[in-house]
Amino acid sequence: MNITVGRKAIAEATQKLKNWGRWGHDDQIGTLNHVRPEDIVNAARLIRTGKVFALGIPLDRNGPQTGLFGGRWNPIHTMLATGTDAVAGRQDKVPNIRYADDAINLPVQCATHWDSLGHIFYEDKMYNGFDAREVDCNGLGKLGIEHARSKMVGRGVLLDVARFRGVSWLNDGDAVGNDELDKCAKDQNVDIRRGDFVILRTGQMERCLADKNWGAYAGGPAPGVRFENCYWCQDKEIAAICSDTWGVEVRPNETAEVNQPWHWVVIPAMGLTMGEMFYVKELAEDCEADGIYEFFFCGAPLIITGGTGSPLNPQAIK
Amino acid sequence: MNITVGRKAIAEATQKLKNWGRWGHDDQIGTLNHVRPEDIVNAARLIRTGKVFALGIPLDRNGPQTGLFGGRWNPIHTMLATGTDAVAGRQDKVPNIRYADDAINLPVQCATHWDSLGHIFYEDKMYNGFDAREVDCNGLGKLGIEHARSKMVGRGVLLDVARFRGVSWLNDGDAVGNDELDKCAKDQNVDIRRGDFVILRTGQMERCLADKNWGAYAGGPAPGVRFENCYWCQDKEIAAICSDTWGVEVRPNETAEVNQPWHWVVIPAMGLTMGEMFYVKELAEDCEADGIYEFFFCGAPLIITGGTGSPLNPQAIK
Amino acid sequence: MNITVGRKAIAEATQKLKNWGRWGHDDQIGTLNHVRPEDIVNAARLIRTGKVFALGIPLDRNGPQTGLFGGRWNPIHTMLATGTDAVAGRQDKVPNIRYADDAINLPVQCATHWDSLGHIFYEDKMYNGFDAREVDCNGLGKLGIEHARSKMVGRGVLLDVARFRGVSWLNDGDAVGNDELDKCAKDQNVDIRRGDFVILRTGQMERCLADKNWGAYAGGPAPGVRFENCYWCQDKEIAAICSDTWGVEVRPNETAEVNQPWHWVVIPAMGLTMGEMFYVKELAEDCEADGIYEFFFCGAPLIITGGTGSPLNPQAIK
Amino acid sequence: MNITVGRKAIAEATQKLKNWGRWGHDDQIGTLNHVRPEDIVNAARLIRTGKVFALGIPLDRNGPQTGLFGGRWNPIHTMLATGTDAVAGRQDKVPNIRYADDAINLPVQCATHWDSLGHIFYEDKMYNGFDAREVDCNGLGKLGIEHARSKMVGRGVLLDVARFRGVSWLNDGDAVGNDELDKCAKDQNVDIRRGDFVILRTGQMERCLADKNWGAYAGGPAPGVRFENCYWCQDKEIAAICSDTWGVEVRPNETAEVNQPWHWVVIPAMGLTMGEMFYVKELAEDCEADGIYEFFFCGAPLIITGGTGSPLNPQAIK
Repeated sequence: MNITVGRKAIAEATQKLKNWGRWGHDDQIGTLNHVRPEDIVNAARLIRTGKVFALGIPLDRNGPQTGLFGGRWNPIHTMLATGTDAVAGRQDKVPNIRYADDAINLPVQCATHWDSLGHIFYEDKMYNGFDAREVDCNGLGKLGIEHARSKMVGRGVLLDVARFRGVSWLNDGDAVGNDELDKCAKDQNVDIRRGDFVILRTGQMERCLADKNWGAYAGGPAPGVRFENCYWCQDKEIAAICSDTWGVEVRPNETAEVNQPWHWVVIPAMGLTMGEMFYVKELAEDCEADGIYEFFFCGAPLIITGGTGSPLNPQAIK
Repeated sequence: MNITVGRKAIAEATQKLKNWGRWGHDDQIGTLNHVRPEDIVNAARLIRTGKVFALGIPLDRNGPQTGLFGGRWNPIHTMLATGTDAVAGRQDKVPNIRYADDAINLPVQCATHWDSLGHIFYEDKMYNGFDAREVDCNGLGKLGIEHARSKMVGRGVLLDVARFRGVSWLNDGDAVGNDELDKCAKDQNVDIRRGDFVILRTGQMERCLADKNWGAYAGGPAPGVRFENCYWCQDKEIAAICSDTWGVEVRPNETAEVNQPWHWVVIPAMGLTMGEMFYVKELAEDCEADGIYEFFFCGAPLIITGGTGSPLNPQAIK
Repeated sequence: MNITVGRKAIAEATQKLKNWGRWGHDDQIGTLNHVRPEDIVNAARLIRTGKVFALGIPLDRNGPQTGLFGGRWNPIHTMLATGTDAVAGRQDKVPNIRYADDAINLPVQCATHWDSLGHIFYEDKMYNGFDAREVDCNGLGKLGIEHARSKMVGRGVLLDVARFRGVSWLNDGDAVGNDELDKCAKDQNVDIRRGDFVILRTGQMERCLADKNWGAYAGGPAPGVRFENCYWCQDKEIAAICSDTWGVEVRPNETAEVNQPWHWVVIPAMGLTMGEMFYVKELAEDCEADGIYEFFFCGAPLIITGGTGSPLNPQAIK
Repeated sequence: MNITVGRKAIAEATQKLKNWGRWGHDDQIGTLNHVRPEDIVNAARLIRTGKVFALGIPLDRNGPQTGLFGGRWNPIHTMLATGTDAVAGRQDKVPNIRYADDAINLPVQCATHWDSLGHIFYEDKMYNGFDAREVDCNGLGKLGIEHARSKMVGRGVLLDVARFRGVSWLNDGDAVGNDELDKCAKDQNVDIRRGDFVILRTGQMERCLADKNWGAYAGGPAPGVRFENCYWCQDKEIAAICSDTWGVEVRPNETAEVNQPWHWVVIPAMGLTMGEMFYVKELAEDCEADGIYEFFFCGAPLIITGGTGSPLNPQAIK
């Protein structure tokens, strides 16, 4: 496609791709509606070896947040009871139990996570026409991640763009167009179907992990999809799109007018669920090894009432 | 079995059921080793209708913590950016994006969760002989929940003890023995196999939800398994045991000598993973309706480095 | 005074008592402007015995928050390093130091605190005419507590209304009028001057502490000043008004139309700083003993950028 | 003095300077006992102009923590209610109040703070011989900052070492010996008395603020006192020592054997209270201007039960 990305293109794509009302005026899950029970049954048949891949990154102080976006911080994990306390006899009341306990404090989008459909607004509106003011300090009155509690199961597909290009990782700023996604799928002998959970691998995260330096990963330049990808996602009727980057789309953005133009369309207009910071190294190696780029996908969010998303540890099972 | 529960019985069970070294001296996942790849493949065949059941409870201020144990609190969800801010024009810098963002702060065991194997000590030791002092303010140096990141997948079995008894819920203090579990399984036409994720339904949580009052749910009296259950779990070689209660075992405990005697054995001696506060209402109704009490289970923990456990939203898929 | 409290009385008082512009259009501290350097010098002369009274309550899990207002919680204090860790040798790296460290997480108004002038709005406005939308998820763009960083020093006066009435504590719902404040001051042989930090003692907190039960202290019924008190504060030109209750004014409120009618006027119209949950037991006993109800007051807020207030431990020095 | 700093010198100083039992075996405040009521009365006479200096730095995300020590983070300030919510009508229930509210989460020592006497251990002991294991995940069983709730008032003295040297700031690694402190005091025409709150100005913080870059301020190299300073503090019988640096003593430390050798002595042996990250720019300018380096000091800690210290906003009043 040949799109001059900017506010006008966003308005046009919003008009063309709007799924408001498509699944009812009270719908809160958008494109997750593309997954039908039979898709889950069929996806289960992809479990042939019993291999399980965890696609989450660790939740700890070494996470990718370096202060670039929105005041997010890396997970703060604090202990409420320790083994050192136990061994020091500090827990020996009657009746006794020696134990450890702990708490964690994290922005829901600080590491591997889902975006909920209430994460991005277009002007004063959310997906399905809900008023953005439904999102106040009490959380998301509409479109919170809790609505997806049992909706994150289906067929997963890995599109390993880095392997398709024959590189270890795409460079920051490398844009991936719709044609390349199609070619990559064809090359990897996998088709994209209605209701799929599509995961893109750019290799960016693996570069950061190899460097032991997240740098500007969480909010800076990145490889990713072009704005035109919103048309591809709508056309393919996928359930969700995920990647190993902070925000799926290419950065610097294709326009200086707005920040994250693709987000402006896929979330509020289409109601597309998005997964970010997925760790796909071992999954990708296995897919290359057996030539099978499809799998059973299970990525349940935490049921955070009114959450803009949820941290998770997605599971790809082959 | 006829056990006088107390420190002596704990010592004896510890001796008999100890799995230290069984899966290697560095093993960090205990009975999760019972799950083999073929079990996962077989479990996938249980996905026949595409129904997905979310077994988590919501993470919000209305959770079960009422101050009874360990200084735990209900999840604190705070917004970092809102729709009201967006509509008020407070985010309209250039380049712009209108968005919502948020954070959550919670004890890892405050709602539906896994216990990691480092959660409970026996004297100065953890499962597999690790020194309890490996658990300090920096977290669990051994046996943290991160080791289970890809190990929580397999065959799930629901033992609906409440339905077996013909009651809406067991009363607090009602004890469930090994015989009853076997009879319940037989009655529900399901066998327990090596590597299973066994979920007990007592109905206690549903009583609290119906009452709109958690009361002493998180730490007070509860129905649950007898101490003898540790022998049953070891014999069956299950991967994990879960329930709709705070702590799986019956409370008041069967002894006044210690708090939670069954925990003293199953975690540090056996290395048994335990799931607590599972919400099973709809799953149980469905199992009754179709008479099928087995399903595909996927309950990935968050990868909390050094965590004593993890909040999660377990998925039962039929 | 004879006021029918309600929206109309609020509108009228707002009109009459508005201090907007009185200290300049950029003023961010309101009635704290009443304190002049010479008042501080004079107040220092009240330090005659070297007795220091700490007017804060402890910050811990036993605080007054019981879920009645605004989702506030009691302080959560967690350790980042402990002596048990140290003694267990867990800190013995080279070069070594054995230490303890910790963190605290609290709503700024959960215990003894100042309200900042941006805490309460009247319609769409804050004190001095600032737009309420200046207060977004990034904090208070105007009127944050940081502006008072060096302004909380001066003459303190205790008005011990409970002693004046000859009771241990006023009952919930007991209203204190302007006349009674004047009589109480006269009875206690103290005058109220421009720039004073006036502290009211109702005894309510002491009742809760004696009962070891906060009950509905933080948001429920309480003794306190009548709505008409706003006229008294304006007339006396005091710097701040404080009390041993959650919110200074009487509860149930004198009207069902609005919540906390006195707050509607004193903060947004007058720019009056307010101190809440002050612990005054020993101070009051000392004042009774020596008959001196005035003292040097120093109650510096934490410099919480954009804070709606600050926890503090006010000091009364005689 | 001529000391070879290391474990041996620490042991020797510990022996010579130990104040254990000096103020009773239950004493929890150490050198704060040096302040007597008459000192407070005398200090009040130093209030001559009514000028108040706030010595705290702002508590926000722009604080000095950059990950160098102990997993500390900068204050996280989150809103619980905003003006944008209010204006959007999201708070308009009946009875109504439009308001803002917020919370803060911070390590107690992340910005301007007191160290409590339980912050540092010597081997297995705390000040006054208390067992370090009294400090567990429940906080400081002994020597918590709450004991100092009314003890942080007295005569303050500024020793402006940077001005004494005629520089804007001392360089990192610049060591300040006892002789220099004495000469500086003499030059600034101020004596050091029993019970003083002594504040050292190195200028390091002002350099960071001028650079708009905290760099390694919180844990890296710094100007500061020599190890020998512990003898000076004991000899002068001061109540507390404070500085505009992270840790008062010079860094890199004078020995590679241990981290912060001076801390090893002054806290556990002497029971000396220490104030860190004090902001003294305006105070120092005023002292230079009027040639008066003494003032009334009021630095109440928050009453954090079992806290290793407390954030504060100290007040110097002239």
